[in-house]
Amino acid sequence: MIDKLIAAAKKAGEIILSAHDIENAVDEKSGTANFVTKYDVMVQEYLFDELKKSFPKAKFMGEENGADHLYENGLCFIIDPIDGTTNFIMNYRHSAVSIGLAQDGEMIAGVVYNPYMDEVFHAEKGKGAFLNGQKIEAVERSIAQSVVGYGTSPYYPDKMDATFKLVRDLYELSLDVRRSGSAALDLCYIACSRTGLFFETKLSPWDYAAASLIITEAGGSIGRIEGGDITFDKPCSVLAGNKKAAEEFHTRFSFK
Amino acid sequence: MIDKLIAAAKKAGEIILSAHDIENAVDEKSGTANFVTKYDVMVQEYLFDELKKSFPKAKFMGEENGADHLYENGLCFIIDPIDGTTNFIMNYRHSAVSIGLAQDGEMIAGVVYNPYMDEVFHAEKGKGAFLNGQKIEAVERSIAQSVVGYGTSPYYPDKMDATFKLVRDLYELSLDVRRSGSAALDLCYIACSRTGLFFETKLSPWDYAAASLIITEAGGSIGRIEGGDITFDKPCSVLAGNKKAAEEFHTRFSFK
Repeated sequence: MIDKLIAAAKKAGEIILSAHDIENAVDEKSGTANFVTKYDVMVQEYLFDELKKSFPKAKFMGEENGADHLYENGLCFIIDPIDGTTNFIMNYRHSAVSIGLAQDGEMIAGVVYNPYMDEVFHAEKGKGAFLNGQKIEAVERSIAQSVVGYGTSPYYPDKMDATFKLVRDLYELSLDVRRSGSAALDLCYIACSRTGLFFETKLSPWDYAAASLIITEAGGSIGRIEGGDITFDKPCSVLAGNKKAAEEFHTRFSFK
Repeated sequence: MIDKLIAAAKKAGEIILSAHDIENAVDEKSGTANFVTKYDVMVQEYLFDELKKSFPKAKFMGEENGADHLYENGLCFIIDPIDGTTNFIMNYRHSAVSIGLAQDGEMIAGVVYNPYMDEVFHAEKGKGAFLNGQKIEAVERSIAQSVVGYGTSPYYPDKMDATFKLVRDLYELSLDVRRSGSAALDLCYIACSRTGLFFETKLSPWDYAAASLIITEAGGSIGRIEGGDITFDKPCSVLAGNKKAAEEFHTRFSFK
């Protein structure tokens, strides 16, 4: 089953790599940096069509058709065709295809593929997490021993001050901060211990669905900044990390 | 001449890729995240030895032997064996080899190589800037149309508040911010228009020597945040961008 998801993600990655005349294709939705491109739609349509062949009864949730309660019954794919759209537009070469699969409301498989680095992160429920077929682990390190990733919630300007206050506070506690522009990859980087902690004040389910399973299968932790579980029917904040750093975060900071 | 530099940078990149047991090799200098590894020394020694064969009279300035006035007379290499050391230690896979060549105090050649992406940025004085052999250009865009990169000057904790105030201000004006952990690559990303602006409150000459020529040969601009030229005999602040964004920065912000 996971092989079908990986194959689809890799083929979608090829479409991303083959993209050209990108800037001419840029349209603007609501809000700064909220671009949508013909490639976003093209990749999503490819994935829906391709995955339907192997999973004819599955439903689909994605950035181009919105979040809802579809995932609660039966099989449902939660997909971000191009996570890191601004990077894609700018040819910053750090974006990913994200494919999560839920069964009766629970994530059972996740694949995140970065075509620029040819890195496939994948996990199946109960079977561990992998990077290009090698088992990965979110090694327990304190915040002081960790690099901290963050996202800026660019679609939500009201989050700006809270974001940058927390960035500064975490910078002071940690080795350094990173802002990559792809939440799906930021989360996978925790799963393989490149970073120890990540936060973003508001993300959508397709940003974290696949990667959430990759993190937990790697022994890491993902939830909301204010505590409690992430949601798959609506946007929420995200705090992820290796278990030690995530626990330390919740001890040091209170956002209830 | 530039071919020798590119060949040396690529070979040095192979050493970086072949690195293993990295974390066991980590030592700590003064300050958070200021790591030095056996690979840093190994790559620098390789580059010094290799470049001496083709440039027997050249002098060498590098992270492992400090900044001075060597570059002012004759040929002098200014080298960072592994720019983005914390990324290297954490296997974050975003670091670069940086080789600048000065003649009588002026940069005449620069090569920055990212072995993880197999991307070679290079420039020779008066001959333009290139990425993997293709000409690149720092396209003129306003800050509002640009992604802004920044560095955190991790060796200088007293710069923290100034850095994060400016990050927040520039975030508000721009499409988004990026923090990659490699200043040399951040500067090259401006040269090929992946980003439009970059700042860091304090960097060392080997961080920007090679990339400074790549930026100017791509039509971009590099200087100090407070105005004036960057220095090659001592650390300084860096403000780089496409010409439009850099001019706009100096109009909007005053750090004199």
